[in-house]
Amino acid sequence: MADVSRPLSIIHPPIIECGAGVASKVAEWAASKGAGKVLVVADAFNADRVGLLGFGPETKVEVFGDVVPEPDIANLDAVLAVTAELAPDLVVGFGGGSAMDLAKLAAVLGDGGQTLADVVGAHLVKGRRPLLAQVPTTAGTGSEGGTRSLVTDTQNARKMAVESLYMLADMVALDPQLTVSLPPALTAATGVDALAHCVESYTNVKAHPAIDVYATEGIRLIGRYLGRAVENGEDLEARTALALASLYGGFCLGPVNTAAGHAVAYPLGTRHHIAHGHANAVIFPHVLAFNASVAPERTAFVLDALGVSGDVSQAALQFCENLGIEMRMSRLGIPEADLEAMSGEAFAIKRLLDNNPREVSREDILGIYKAAY
Amino acid sequence: MADVSRPLSIIHPPIIECGAGVASKVAEWAASKGAGKVLVVADAFNADRVGLLGFGPETKVEVFGDVVPEPDIANLDAVLAVTAELAPDLVVGFGGGSAMDLAKLAAVLGDGGQTLADVVGAHLVKGRRPLLAQVPTTAGTGSEGGTRSLVTDTQNARKMAVESLYMLADMVALDPQLTVSLPPALTAATGVDALAHCVESYTNVKAHPAIDVYATEGIRLIGRYLGRAVENGEDLEARTALALASLYGGFCLGPVNTAAGHAVAYPLGTRHHIAHGHANAVIFPHVLAFNASVAPERTAFVLDALGVSGDVSQAALQFCENLGIEMRMSRLGIPEADLEAMSGEAFAIKRLLDNNPREVSREDILGIYKAAY
Repeated sequence: MADVSRPLSIIHPPIIECGAGVASKVAEWAASKGAGKVLVVADAFNADRVGLLGFGPETKVEVFGDVVPEPDIANLDAVLAVTAELAPDLVVGFGGGSAMDLAKLAAVLGDGGQTLADVVGAHLVKGRRPLLAQVPTTAGTGSEGGTRSLVTDTQNARKMAVESLYMLADMVALDPQLTVSLPPALTAATGVDALAHCVESYTNVKAHPAIDVYATEGIRLIGRYLGRAVENGEDLEARTALALASLYGGFCLGPVNTAAGHAVAYPLGTRHHIAHGHANAVIFPHVLAFNASVAPERTAFVLDALGVSGDVSQAALQFCENLGIEMRMSRLGIPEADLEAMSGEAFAIKRLLDNNPREVSREDILGIYKAAY
Repeated sequence: MADVSRPLSIIHPPIIECGAGVASKVAEWAASKGAGKVLVVADAFNADRVGLLGFGPETKVEVFGDVVPEPDIANLDAVLAVTAELAPDLVVGFGGGSAMDLAKLAAVLGDGGQTLADVVGAHLVKGRRPLLAQVPTTAGTGSEGGTRSLVTDTQNARKMAVESLYMLADMVALDPQLTVSLPPALTAATGVDALAHCVESYTNVKAHPAIDVYATEGIRLIGRYLGRAVENGEDLEARTALALASLYGGFCLGPVNTAAGHAVAYPLGTRHHIAHGHANAVIFPHVLAFNASVAPERTAFVLDALGVSGDVSQAALQFCENLGIEMRMSRLGIPEADLEAMSGEAFAIKRLLDNNPREVSREDILGIYKAAY
């Protein structure tokens, strides 16, 4: 695991502004690039505070404020219609992973040259005309740092993934003040999502030292600061550290990506509409334990960084429960009879399961669901 | 030191290809960007192996192969003349820091809109038309990862620094095969230059956790791999690790930069033409020791990562001497009578001395020179 000689493409947004108040640097940067027409892609909550991005009256700013959690094709079509109409110079994703993922697709598909069906998969996007900036308002998905976008195909209860270098942001603003209002439960769940990105990349057949540097730092930051932010949402030091941890998780996603944890978590979202962060948190301890035998040193590093010890799944579960996360699938409205079908769905996500350091059977997935139930 | 709440701009080239053979990805990437006219800026040695960049006959490639070490204004003027004539779509820096620094300036000044005098300082460059790719053939300067360029003003024996986001590479290829031919002495000296970037950024009044992650990883990689590459130049694993360490040193330079070490080392280059890497190596142990009292934990981390212990300057000196570096200024043709004047020159480099965690007087600098003599 983690041979430095394996060729790798390392991807970063070129400019990352980090610190309290930097959201307003988006407008400054846009002005330096001569962007006069701006589309902000946001959920309803963030649509109400677009002023924080700092645009003055000299810029035409249009806000698409209808992003929904786990966006589906209809939601994408709605933002694409607005994009086609405006033909913006700059698209800004302003929200959690859903807003940022839709902003990516708006930026590359908004001119109508390609459709979603044309680009599902890797490296099928042909180009991008507008600039792209990302301003995360949660600290979890890491979408701001990566080249992927996910859209839910509701009819077939699956996630469609688009990957393209053209969806890499030109500029990211990590402003901890934007996450101060996140309630403790959401802070905890999104933080564990970032943790899962780092851990699944660190314990991955494609792990690489140049990505491990982000994975390990992200894990350390979550271990040190997530509890603080859950306890006191206004702790700006903790909020900044979590914004960085989330970004680092995003850096892990492009070149290495997640593994069994995310695959097993997906059906909780696609079938039962459990928020992405929460779904990953519920699954995280059990996949960590499942992989421990083939990655003992790395598993030990994770537990140590999280400040827990003992039996792997119990220790990781304890970390999550201490954050107040409801970790039992049975309490999340998932009927036990569904676990079998969910196992089949998760087992179909080969692109992630193939990354797992230990082979995963359909039976193994069912076992993980039962342990988490 | 290293408060995560301090606002910071984190800068990375968006695409970094890493691994044996990736030099040829420059042509692939250039083709995807539609770059038909390419200027390669190289020293004589690398000018002879431009074929490794992979360009085919469909691309017009012109090579400026006259880059000299520690390039001066005349060298810059020569490359600017070629750039103006060709009007390239893409400028590729192919060599050590000198070639990459000149490539940066060729990319932003080549169209004649601004002169060097217009842009010396920070953020004075107004734009850049051609694409910029960097392909380092040493592992030391980190120029490929940063936004700075240095040109020597021979008449006034000083370095002029240009800093601009427009000089950030669009693409970097870190190909360890390019450094296999570096002789042990140059491998050692350039490796310690990368180490100095990381250490001076880590023990810096502007240190920041988001940069410390690179500084600490760079220091660890140098400690683990530099001796291996000096011993066996064909150790591709070690060469790859050093390429990453150099890049990480470059990541440190933009947002944090170096401190007293580089300031004190400059006169060795400007007055006595000692290669930049070697000059930094000679000074490194003595500045580390000078700062130890105000950064004891970070100094201890450095020694530990380098695998040495005991008295700080002796331990760091031992690390460098084990690599075969001539560490005595007296053996490098520098007359003792010059140290006084050199102290004055180094003391004038306020922009770096202000970054040092311990205040540095002109007398202190003289003391460092005497210790290194």
